[in-house]
Amino acid sequence: MPVQRLVVIGGDAAGMSAAAQARRSAPVDDLEVLAFERGPRTSYAACGLPYLVGGEVADADRLVARTPEQFRANGIDVQVRHEVVEVDTAARRVCVRDLDAGTERHEPYDQLLIATGARGVRPPLPGIDAGRVLELRTIDQAAELEQVLTTGARRAVVVGGGYIGIEVAEALVARGLDVAMVEMAEHCMATVLDPSMASLVDDAVRAGGVDLRLGTPVAGFAVKDGRVRGVETGSGGLDADVVVLGLGVRAETGLADAAGVPVGRAGGIVVDNTMHTPVDGVWAAGDCVESHHRVSGRPAVVALGTHANKQGRVAGTNIAAVVRGDAPTARFGGVLGTAVTRFQRTEVGRTGLTAGEATELGHDIVAVTTEAPSRARYYPGGEPMQILVVAERVGGRLLGAQIVGGDASAKRIDVLATALWNDMTVDEIGGMDLSYAPPFSPVWDPVLLAAGKAAAAVARP
Amino acid sequence: MPVQRLVVIGGDAAGMSAAAQARRSAPVDDLEVLAFERGPRTSYAACGLPYLVGGEVADADRLVARTPEQFRANGIDVQVRHEVVEVDTAARRVCVRDLDAGTERHEPYDQLLIATGARGVRPPLPGIDAGRVLELRTIDQAAELEQVLTTGARRAVVVGGGYIGIEVAEALVARGLDVAMVEMAEHCMATVLDPSMASLVDDAVRAGGVDLRLGTPVAGFAVKDGRVRGVETGSGGLDADVVVLGLGVRAETGLADAAGVPVGRAGGIVVDNTMHTPVDGVWAAGDCVESHHRVSGRPAVVALGTHANKQGRVAGTNIAAVVRGDAPTARFGGVLGTAVTRFQRTEVGRTGLTAGEATELGHDIVAVTTEAPSRARYYPGGEPMQILVVAERVGGRLLGAQIVGGDASAKRIDVLATALWNDMTVDEIGGMDLSYAPPFSPVWDPVLLAAGKAAAAVARP
Repeated sequence: MPVQRLVVIGGDAAGMSAAAQARRSAPVDDLEVLAFERGPRTSYAACGLPYLVGGEVADADRLVARTPEQFRANGIDVQVRHEVVEVDTAARRVCVRDLDAGTERHEPYDQLLIATGARGVRPPLPGIDAGRVLELRTIDQAAELEQVLTTGARRAVVVGGGYIGIEVAEALVARGLDVAMVEMAEHCMATVLDPSMASLVDDAVRAGGVDLRLGTPVAGFAVKDGRVRGVETGSGGLDADVVVLGLGVRAETGLADAAGVPVGRAGGIVVDNTMHTPVDGVWAAGDCVESHHRVSGRPAVVALGTHANKQGRVAGTNIAAVVRGDAPTARFGGVLGTAVTRFQRTEVGRTGLTAGEATELGHDIVAVTTEAPSRARYYPGGEPMQILVVAERVGGRLLGAQIVGGDASAKRIDVLATALWNDMTVDEIGGMDLSYAPPFSPVWDPVLLAAGKAAAAVARP
Repeated sequence: MPVQRLVVIGGDAAGMSAAAQARRSAPVDDLEVLAFERGPRTSYAACGLPYLVGGEVADADRLVARTPEQFRANGIDVQVRHEVVEVDTAARRVCVRDLDAGTERHEPYDQLLIATGARGVRPPLPGIDAGRVLELRTIDQAAELEQVLTTGARRAVVVGGGYIGIEVAEALVARGLDVAMVEMAEHCMATVLDPSMASLVDDAVRAGGVDLRLGTPVAGFAVKDGRVRGVETGSGGLDADVVVLGLGVRAETGLADAAGVPVGRAGGIVVDNTMHTPVDGVWAAGDCVESHHRVSGRPAVVALGTHANKQGRVAGTNIAAVVRGDAPTARFGGVLGTAVTRFQRTEVGRTGLTAGEATELGHDIVAVTTEAPSRARYYPGGEPMQILVVAERVGGRLLGAQIVGGDASAKRIDVLATALWNDMTVDEIGGMDLSYAPPFSPVWDPVLLAAGKAAAAVARP
């Protein structure tokens, strides 16, 4: 059997997980692995960037999981500063541009993995391309922000109050800047939390020293000498020495789309649960794909390192199987929309559908909020948390949950995510055997308490 | 319909949960609730006693969830210092002794709940009844220990290295005593952890300043002037100003047994999943009953406040239903053996079967240990944890798990308990959508990592 070749487009979590897994699963005599990355680095932890800015992480090198040299030492040929500019699925080859040399060449493949990731949303607002209107998605962008911070920036405006927005705002407050945050919706994290829970985040952000402007669309940016000087909003202007955009991301699907690889209605590359696209020999993984949402049953684009790593591993396993002549056996189980973050001492966790989403999808729901302490009430150091549980009104199947609270609160969302993964009802969840000791929880763990309270509101079928 | 009467024997977690739930679920015109408690208090948190001794909990009153007066104000007649000495299930009445007055009387019942709890194991060793050989199961016993500590005790010996033993040892070290611990088995927590995990607890206990004597049976106690002066072991004597026994508990079934209410092979009162015993009108709940172990499929006695509360609530709901003439609908779902504790900064969590138990029960297993950090490796403050996963060799169904680690490690056992509750395989668990952000976990949460590593060792069916 002649040696086959896997070409990987994109050298971050999904691409390099797939490359590494394929390498582990197939002998070098059967499979050659070649990866192209247009940036200067492989496999870095973008989710760590706010903490690099904030100072918790001392050094950008710590965010790099593996360097190109390390990959090469493991039998994976990674070429950075190489951008794949075209895919020809009929000829099974890609056209690669060497960004430093300015040259292009064709490289054939037997199996192709598209792992092109996502790009930050940059609405076409006046002034958005001015200097110091930054994103925080790469180490280079973090270095640029660091440069701005160390050369005297005093006032920062963060645009967007989602995960990245609040993490960046925390970092900038920690660095001593005057920070304003502008969010179009009525609350921070409005797309992932219901209003009552989101307003707790608003409170934390305000209490943490951020000038929070909710319900405030950005009209444009004031620019002078090519540099941003302020943010124009529907309700007046805000001075700014630097602006950080946290407006979410979109799947990077241009290359796939141009090659005739289908892009779905949620905006990501279409894959089955083996991570194969509808095009023979073409696989995709990570922020650029649509995943099966286990609760809504619909395709969803969720740009998160956890999924990228898992999907990459599934793709790599299956690519190695196909190279051996076997059927693919690894399956990606889908997403729940589980997430966790923190603003200073306030923790936020969520999974599944919000009450708003569930209602929109036609579910008849109960949505019940419970306050509970993280430890036995008599044990010192406990902190309160609010848990919102969303369930079907008839039968009580769990649809989603949200937690906002103090120390040791948000990670409890994983218990509810596991329950959701298994289609449990709130009644069942309330009866589970979870661990208890006074330093760790009240005798009724907050999760049990919240599920039990929701169960009491559920109609018996 | 004449008013019916529920008599509850035992005024702690199970009994009073049942009483309160029955009271909430049935109108006072239908149901009278009468509870007898032989001790002086109702509903106190015995699991908080080590922290009362250690000083984290300042005041014993904080451990009392509700007083008899509070119950009476809610329509539940609680009589403390009243011991039920006999149950006549044919005549449907109990004989109650007023411990202060020294009188006895009969009280009729329509429904009876037995919630007699557990008693500490006290082997018939020479000297065990001497002064200052204490248990730590009641507030009065804690007060006695406090009295000893404040009158000059310097050397303490803890007998037994289980949950209570290590929690008491921590408390006594915190109070400045020289503490030795004597454990017959080769490790602390030997009945609930496999040796490799238990030895990490041994290390923590030793590092925490306890003179730990493993594999050391107690032969008896040295006594002088009626007070303990030392502990005699197979390998020499240990001086002691005070001894605390932590040798586990046994279900308190004497009353039930004498009344002909069946006691099962695991040593607890036999109940179905509605908490009804095989005797008409007699229910039981809490530390005195056998529960269905969901993994072994066998009856198990697990003395833990969480089960007592849940079982009490189930019993109370069903008793109210029966009083109304309805069928019982609430069900206790069984136990997994989930538990958590801490010795100083070392956390311990466990659920399901140990590798040893699983093998003994005839399972062909894999048992795989994984080390993982609690946070992203580049984020400060993360601490390592070890996770042992036990699964069926063929197919990979999870059977149990154990965690020993630093801050934010042990409560992750709840995710594995939820997976175990749902009969998940380690392969499925490894693919779940758990939450991720650098301050909370690595991109592969330790639970996912541990399950994935176990899955790699599993044989495909």
